[in-house]
Amino acid sequence: MEQKWVIGVDLGGTTVKIAFLTIAGDLIDSWEIPTDNSEEGKNITIDIAKSIEEKLNKWNHSKQEVAGVGMGAPGPFDYETGIIYNTVNLGWPDNFPLKERLEAELGLPVIIDNDANCAALGEMWKGAGAGSKDLVCVTLGTGVGGGVIVNGNIVQGVKGAAGEIGHLTSVVENGAPCNCGKTGCLETIASATGIVRVAKEFLADAKTTGELQTTLNEQGTFTAKDVFDAARNGDKIACDVISYIAQHLGLALANIANILNPEKIVLGGGVSKAGDVLLKPVEEYFKAYSFKGVAQSTKLYVATLGNAAGVIGAAWLAKA
Amino acid sequence: MEQKWVIGVDLGGTTVKIAFLTIAGDLIDSWEIPTDNSEEGKNITIDIAKSIEEKLNKWNHSKQEVAGVGMGAPGPFDYETGIIYNTVNLGWPDNFPLKERLEAELGLPVIIDNDANCAALGEMWKGAGAGSKDLVCVTLGTGVGGGVIVNGNIVQGVKGAAGEIGHLTSVVENGAPCNCGKTGCLETIASATGIVRVAKEFLADAKTTGELQTTLNEQGTFTAKDVFDAARNGDKIACDVISYIAQHLGLALANIANILNPEKIVLGGGVSKAGDVLLKPVEEYFKAYSFKGVAQSTKLYVATLGNAAGVIGAAWLAKA
Repeated sequence: MEQKWVIGVDLGGTTVKIAFLTIAGDLIDSWEIPTDNSEEGKNITIDIAKSIEEKLNKWNHSKQEVAGVGMGAPGPFDYETGIIYNTVNLGWPDNFPLKERLEAELGLPVIIDNDANCAALGEMWKGAGAGSKDLVCVTLGTGVGGGVIVNGNIVQGVKGAAGEIGHLTSVVENGAPCNCGKTGCLETIASATGIVRVAKEFLADAKTTGELQTTLNEQGTFTAKDVFDAARNGDKIACDVISYIAQHLGLALANIANILNPEKIVLGGGVSKAGDVLLKPVEEYFKAYSFKGVAQSTKLYVATLGNAAGVIGAAWLAKA
Repeated sequence: MEQKWVIGVDLGGTTVKIAFLTIAGDLIDSWEIPTDNSEEGKNITIDIAKSIEEKLNKWNHSKQEVAGVGMGAPGPFDYETGIIYNTVNLGWPDNFPLKERLEAELGLPVIIDNDANCAALGEMWKGAGAGSKDLVCVTLGTGVGGGVIVNGNIVQGVKGAAGEIGHLTSVVENGAPCNCGKTGCLETIASATGIVRVAKEFLADAKTTGELQTTLNEQGTFTAKDVFDAARNGDKIACDVISYIAQHLGLALANIANILNPEKIVLGGGVSKAGDVLLKPVEEYFKAYSFKGVAQSTKLYVATLGNAAGVIGAAWLAKA
């Protein structure tokens, strides 16, 4: 009897991740191809289709044995039609019919969701959220992304703008400007770039010095990881920075939980790898700002799938 | 052919509201009976059953023509079993099997949800939320309650604690104590009692006087309505109070919308009747703190069903 596979595609500005999985979520194969942004991105869907077909041949698996293709893409887009309204990194003109094009190239049904949502679905299916149907994933990377899952399904919102966790307003007055046009967004504080920004502000105001100041003086700049390392070594300013970030992040997570009381909140992205130096104070603030019944039942976890979350969650879409 | 009805019951500490509706949601009859809290509340379910049976007889409508009974009750309880864990106003011992008792008395299937959720379902079915499957209701009364609806269903959360909008942490440091045990909850600011509390703080710190100060001096106290009236008459302190409240409420609503991007946020309860003096600044802050795509698509509305929302939403439960 034929074994049905699902295919996940995670479309990024520089590479496209692709994976074959069984319907049960066991990984068969995963690989990457470069994203060809030239000529208004016209080769992107062609390259993806060709690469999938070559791999299927290698595995001696026919298209009839594939249930479908799920794809995580940078939004915003129309969920029904699979048209991407606009994109900065992929070269496509506005209102690019991504779903239609890939279906035409590949001869398989394609379903699209945004990349942060796919990461959440991946963690729900095979990662830290496994076994839970109500969870929120917060990805703390260069930016802050989010995916909200209720009863096993992504919450899209009326215009696909649900899960904008990075744009929760954290600082009400005199907040730092955010790429989205607002000020004081969580992303300006709890992303890797936000942490560096906050730390530079704290250093500029500081009356003492220490490891982080020395790093800045010697290298001219530093990373979020440098902040965590300095705090682990007891640098006072770095500890204050982390306390500030943990308070804002803990508050945002608590308020998400006060609204949804999910079983799990899963923290992913590079910043989530900081470990206890960040996660312990985040958890303390989270509990302090959560309604009692929420603090007792909604738990924080660190994501386990890393970069593979998106492609696995995309494959999940094809299964549904 | 028999016409199926649904029955809604809204259980409060002093009265029980009951209504008959058609499956389509047309109101047939609605009435109230007193809540008998004596003898550990043992008559409550008996009284409800008796009252429903009398009314069915009056309408010459048999129990076979009733699809079921939905009930809004003050939580917290177990959704599966319909057991109320504990209740302060109803006299029942802990872990009271409400669903089982009422089903036994009445011989009809009973489904229970908390009262704030029922109000949200009522507004979705027949009120300001009609036609929308993704909405959040926020009831600004003596306290602040909430109901979150995604894809037409109430979000319960893992322990039934979703929708605790009143306990979103609004003031991070030195907030007022809340009945829930936390400090700085939205309820300490945007409920009718919270508005009075904030206004008294503002008056104590004020260097000027005005209408609200005069009311306080003459009557020894004042209501939230007095604050709105004074602001409409241009009282500077009352205007400052409302600006403060609107900022906190607008921020909370914006962050709800940034997470869920619902089609509608419906404001109910006595405070929502303040009109433009409150709603205009709330809307301004809401837009300022919302992610662009959210501000463009999530709209604020005032509830239209008043006190009937709960009983109508309870009836909706029986229909599902």
